[in-house]
Amino acid sequence: MSIILSGAPVASALRERIKNKTENLKAQGVYPTLAVLSVGEEGDNEAYLRGLSKQAEACGIDLLSENLPADASQSRAEEALRELGNDPAIHGILLLRPLPKSLNETALCRLIPPEKDVDCATDLSLAGVFSHRQLGFPPATPRGVMEILAHYEIPLAGKRAVIVGRSLVVGRPLAMMLLKEDATVTLCHSKTENLEEICRQADILVAALGRPRALSRGCFRPGQVLVDVGIHRLEDGSLCGDLDFGAAEPLAEAITPVPGGVGTVTTAVLLSHVITAAENNIL
Amino acid sequence: MSIILSGAPVASALRERIKNKTENLKAQGVYPTLAVLSVGEEGDNEAYLRGLSKQAEACGIDLLSENLPADASQSRAEEALRELGNDPAIHGILLLRPLPKSLNETALCRLIPPEKDVDCATDLSLAGVFSHRQLGFPPATPRGVMEILAHYEIPLAGKRAVIVGRSLVVGRPLAMMLLKEDATVTLCHSKTENLEEICRQADILVAALGRPRALSRGCFRPGQVLVDVGIHRLEDGSLCGDLDFGAAEPLAEAITPVPGGVGTVTTAVLLSHVITAAENNIL
Repeated sequence: MSIILSGAPVASALRERIKNKTENLKAQGVYPTLAVLSVGEEGDNEAYLRGLSKQAEACGIDLLSENLPADASQSRAEEALRELGNDPAIHGILLLRPLPKSLNETALCRLIPPEKDVDCATDLSLAGVFSHRQLGFPPATPRGVMEILAHYEIPLAGKRAVIVGRSLVVGRPLAMMLLKEDATVTLCHSKTENLEEICRQADILVAALGRPRALSRGCFRPGQVLVDVGIHRLEDGSLCGDLDFGAAEPLAEAITPVPGGVGTVTTAVLLSHVITAAENNIL
Repeated sequence: MSIILSGAPVASALRERIKNKTENLKAQGVYPTLAVLSVGEEGDNEAYLRGLSKQAEACGIDLLSENLPADASQSRAEEALRELGNDPAIHGILLLRPLPKSLNETALCRLIPPEKDVDCATDLSLAGVFSHRQLGFPPATPRGVMEILAHYEIPLAGKRAVIVGRSLVVGRPLAMMLLKEDATVTLCHSKTENLEEICRQADILVAALGRPRALSRGCFRPGQVLVDVGIHRLEDGSLCGDLDFGAAEPLAEAITPVPGGVGTVTTAVLLSHVITAAENNIL
């Protein structure tokens, strides 16, 4: 029987810490505020925004949501971001991506001031993740993985962490975060030879390749800590992750569930960045 | 008998390519120019600057060397960098580090325009290395390692590369460069458990930990490609690298010598960045 690394208690503990900090900030007259800018039909974003709004409210953080029409011009989007960037009452800015193809996403991301860049949309935030310095903010998903590992007191120093997936939103930043905690980190991907063998060498194995149940029996050995970043809806309507939970769970020492694992923590991480941004603003 | 991955032919081929490009640029009225700013006694830098100056001349690149006194104020150093940054005749800027402790190195590095940042002193250059985009320039030493591997046609895609050393000037950027070429990359360091075993799993093993002959017999298996980034002067006056060449060479398929390996290539890489900066300036 493996330990189930459920995300709910991690997110809940994080929200408690946020709430305390929010109260401190409000006592100093600072009302932590996150602005979310979206362009076009909200569609898929709607459920996300509802969840974000609910959690923000529970933490005492104000959410300001701005939606531009799908055919908004580049200059209109730039103006909206500049206004949010210049507004001292806004502490964090989240630009929902992907944007409509008519817009230059890179140019828009550059308009987010790094000190308000709570989800790592800017080059300076990326440089901070890579160089282990406090520049901007790291992306929420890999930060959520680190919160789970810390909450369940998984030892990292000296251990072998293998990450499958090298994206700039999960794999690469997570590699830098695990490295900072003194793990020995291996990055695998679609071109990796002998993937199963390398996965079995891991003490901590992170599946972040974005394919349903891509890591199966041959990737696991007894005693591993398994972290699943993926989430997919199967034809029968059920949800699964990037690893085969049924094959993994009997062997693993500990494993994150899907749903209820990493995805549960990311919103709380994002809100914690808003609080840090608001605190930094006072200093 | 292993193949000796000598740096000289790599540097020489690189300089040939630079020379051709320099001639093209001069035909268009552009005289590629590198400015080197140093503060304080040149001491250790002197030999480096002499080598740089000689190679720049051989490539047709103008070198402008500016030295500030050891007690130069922050504002004096900032002024010097701003002048170089604003001068359209200067294409690349190299700020020799470490600087005297009285100066704020981070603040000074930020004054280098990323498009002139030929040795990765700025956050934008770091973000470019991390995100695999053309922002600024990568650091010269890991880029030199990649030039050697490319010159000797070492296969990288799918292979296991193990880097020992996680510095921001070598280990981490090299990990990102090898990843871009589809290698499976592991970053090891002082806290890594079972270092020897992990090193033996490497197809390409890079020693970049900065300790003389730190990787010895137990780290090697037959058929590996070994790259040594270190260089140290021993008590008897001889030079050695971070790996034990005598133990490694009989087993390795290919190995870089010290001296005459990676260190031989870095200056040519730096000069190639000056040319790229001058070319980008025309576009």
